[in-house]
Amino acid sequence: MRITATFLDEISFDIPHHNWGRDEWDRDFAAMKAMGIRRVVLIRCASGYFMAYPSEVIPRRGVKHRPPIDLVDLFLELSEKHGFEFFAGTWHCNPGNCIDWSREQYLDEIRINLDVIDELQARYGHRKAFAGWYLTHEVCSNEPGTIELFQTLGSHAKKVSGNKPTLISPYFAGVKAAAATCDPNALRLTPELHAEHWGRIFRDIAGAVDITAFQDGHVDYPELAEYLTVTRELADANHIRCWSNIESFDRDMPWRFPPIKWEKFLWKLESAEAAGISEGITFEFSHFMSPNSMYPAAGALFDRYCEYCGLAARSRDLRGS
Amino acid sequence: MRITATFLDEISFDIPHHNWGRDEWDRDFAAMKAMGIRRVVLIRCASGYFMAYPSEVIPRRGVKHRPPIDLVDLFLELSEKHGFEFFAGTWHCNPGNCIDWSREQYLDEIRINLDVIDELQARYGHRKAFAGWYLTHEVCSNEPGTIELFQTLGSHAKKVSGNKPTLISPYFAGVKAAAATCDPNALRLTPELHAEHWGRIFRDIAGAVDITAFQDGHVDYPELAEYLTVTRELADANHIRCWSNIESFDRDMPWRFPPIKWEKFLWKLESAEAAGISEGITFEFSHFMSPNSMYPAAGALFDRYCEYCGLAARSRDLRGS
Amino acid sequence: MRITATFLDEISFDIPHHNWGRDEWDRDFAAMKAMGIRRVVLIRCASGYFMAYPSEVIPRRGVKHRPPIDLVDLFLELSEKHGFEFFAGTWHCNPGNCIDWSREQYLDEIRINLDVIDELQARYGHRKAFAGWYLTHEVCSNEPGTIELFQTLGSHAKKVSGNKPTLISPYFAGVKAAAATCDPNALRLTPELHAEHWGRIFRDIAGAVDITAFQDGHVDYPELAEYLTVTRELADANHIRCWSNIESFDRDMPWRFPPIKWEKFLWKLESAEAAGISEGITFEFSHFMSPNSMYPAAGALFDRYCEYCGLAARSRDLRGS
Repeated sequence: MRITATFLDEISFDIPHHNWGRDEWDRDFAAMKAMGIRRVVLIRCASGYFMAYPSEVIPRRGVKHRPPIDLVDLFLELSEKHGFEFFAGTWHCNPGNCIDWSREQYLDEIRINLDVIDELQARYGHRKAFAGWYLTHEVCSNEPGTIELFQTLGSHAKKVSGNKPTLISPYFAGVKAAAATCDPNALRLTPELHAEHWGRIFRDIAGAVDITAFQDGHVDYPELAEYLTVTRELADANHIRCWSNIESFDRDMPWRFPPIKWEKFLWKLESAEAAGISEGITFEFSHFMSPNSMYPAAGALFDRYCEYCGLAARSRDLRGS
Repeated sequence: MRITATFLDEISFDIPHHNWGRDEWDRDFAAMKAMGIRRVVLIRCASGYFMAYPSEVIPRRGVKHRPPIDLVDLFLELSEKHGFEFFAGTWHCNPGNCIDWSREQYLDEIRINLDVIDELQARYGHRKAFAGWYLTHEVCSNEPGTIELFQTLGSHAKKVSGNKPTLISPYFAGVKAAAATCDPNALRLTPELHAEHWGRIFRDIAGAVDITAFQDGHVDYPELAEYLTVTRELADANHIRCWSNIESFDRDMPWRFPPIKWEKFLWKLESAEAAGISEGITFEFSHFMSPNSMYPAAGALFDRYCEYCGLAARSRDLRGS
Repeated sequence: MRITATFLDEISFDIPHHNWGRDEWDRDFAAMKAMGIRRVVLIRCASGYFMAYPSEVIPRRGVKHRPPIDLVDLFLELSEKHGFEFFAGTWHCNPGNCIDWSREQYLDEIRINLDVIDELQARYGHRKAFAGWYLTHEVCSNEPGTIELFQTLGSHAKKVSGNKPTLISPYFAGVKAAAATCDPNALRLTPELHAEHWGRIFRDIAGAVDITAFQDGHVDYPELAEYLTVTRELADANHIRCWSNIESFDRDMPWRFPPIKWEKFLWKLESAEAAGISEGITFEFSHFMSPNSMYPAAGALFDRYCEYCGLAARSRDLRGS
């Protein structure tokens, strides 16, 4: 079980920005590589008034700031330099999780993102590092519209890009979902009910979605291995690859969010391994595991992880001045 | 549009302290200067149990700790060393915004601050860097007492100091005022109503208040240019200089407060420029834009701003050991 | 009045983790020593799913992760290296303060901790640095079960360890207790009522508890000296040593918790001195006063404290790379 991928959360709604420029990102890709990461996934291409690239189609839906730097281009360039694969994220139009979401909104999200996918393909599809797609919508259950969203967008992205793989990262409807979504009545699914919902979803989106990587932070630690096992078995049965999104931030602290305690991270690595999963993506390296993070405990998490994996890399040698 | 001034928030009620001594402040003034700052404004001279200087008059209103260092003296000394102007802040007796404020309290605030101004003038009025006054009371509308407060204190400060300029920094009654004031029913003013309130205020305080610098963080990004334009026009009409207080902290994050995302800061610079404003003060350099800040993203914001302005200064060269 | 001890909060429930390994802890013990610390107190030996050492008895009460490192062993080793005394903390089974606590739960806590104390003594009792016990339960008043808990556990710990001293760290039922315990109806005790409660408690636990160090952050600054004086007099009368737990984190800021403002820390040092107390423990050095803390203001607090004490140590010389 190794972390081989990370999200890139530069267009964020709840994570403070690093305000990095090209040099800082270059240095951070080098640190990722030292830890064994070979794949970066842009979590979304727009949020609120801000866009990761100078899109023409996104501003049709409301005011957007023209970005001073094209981050998709920068991330592709750095992926090419460091030998990474880059996955492009779609647009989650309604950022924040604290919302009611209707089928009508799903249909709207589909319409918008078909254009966004076409635009991303047209602008960046030829780039060497462009290796796949991330369907950014985060869900936990089979709500009306969920299947249609992933089917339509996944199929379209694969079709226009010569069948590049598509990734989703849902979350478990577990004990911490209420806090995460700011909804005290958030849905809770037992592993059995989770299997019902996701058996149906996986059956219907197979072929449009190639990889799933559940966020591992919404269930309690002792329950995690069971949720992951059920998920991995269902994914296998539907020929969907199953990774784990091993969150490197701590959901149990009084502020949102510091880097996670190493022992919790270790617990989650061990749970994924117990579930028969061998590949991990983390949300996300740059704030929560990087020697260059604004949070010094991130560099220490990097060191503990490298020690655990027998890697010689150490944060003090990878940090910028 | 350039940032030429910063507040100094050492006597804080909601910003964690750096615990800097003389050397750290000296280094930070040097960093300010490298970014083009030439003016520092002490945001208040007392808050809660703490005072920026060993006042004799403030402790008459309740227990105060005798400060281990005279910050007004220190800031004047460093302003003299670095060639800055220093503006002295008055005392906002009831710190925190989450209060009802009556005309009676305004009158009390006036009585206290007349003595505070006299004391500041007596102690520091002769200092070379003492260049003006900051009337620390933060308001958004023409509540009973507002005009009287600024008229009386501004006139008095100018009279005792040989007409040194006076500055205020109100806030827009916008969409984020409720969160900022912890009052879900906080007043909201459209640009038109804002113009009604501030047309009246500016008319009446002209002559007593020389400069206004509205906090730019309480309205939504797309609305900002309009609020600033209305304000600048009213200020011009009343012969009040109009700066913008370009906040360098982020009001949209889950904790209070990290440094702002560069792209938001840029948006606000551009909005002020579009409104015909050419001078900016920020709240505040040391926590949110400084290479020496406790928040590393502040140094990166410094770098992005310097790049934008074509300045050669970089945070890595200005940071302390 | 000097800080001669610190808690170690590695098994934390509300303080983000540093993710330090052996080298980082070694360096931090060196920094403690430079500030005059000679005693470290493990605040608890387990919390939630995590344990400070590979206990056999704690997991009988529910799932626990087998720790990747034995922190009790590590802290004893580093205490021996740096010439410190180590106090072992018991297990507070119900972490977090936001709970109702019944006498039945106290009895259960006693039963568990008798086994924990035996296990700690068996594993580590022979170690040179093992100097005492910390009874981790935090209380503010004479609730049913409080006296019994401290009597039973203190007596047992002393008996099995050849009479090693026992320490408790209660809190004042003051104006900030409601926020700290998340209970708006939290008990408030005037100094007179505080004296009634603690006169009774001290009388009954004398002999089982040797040292008390009240947390100094729950009362308002001007009241602190009086609460400390009352407490010190009662402790003296009952032959209990009275230290002060001078908290180095700031309870007045919008997030939990940054390092405290130096002037507040100074106020509390002065209050303890005025109360006739000469020995301080802090909660806690590594996050809030250390040159190695994730919070840079901690290193500055270290510098201000060292200047105040006339110590030559400075944070820049003690920080890791």
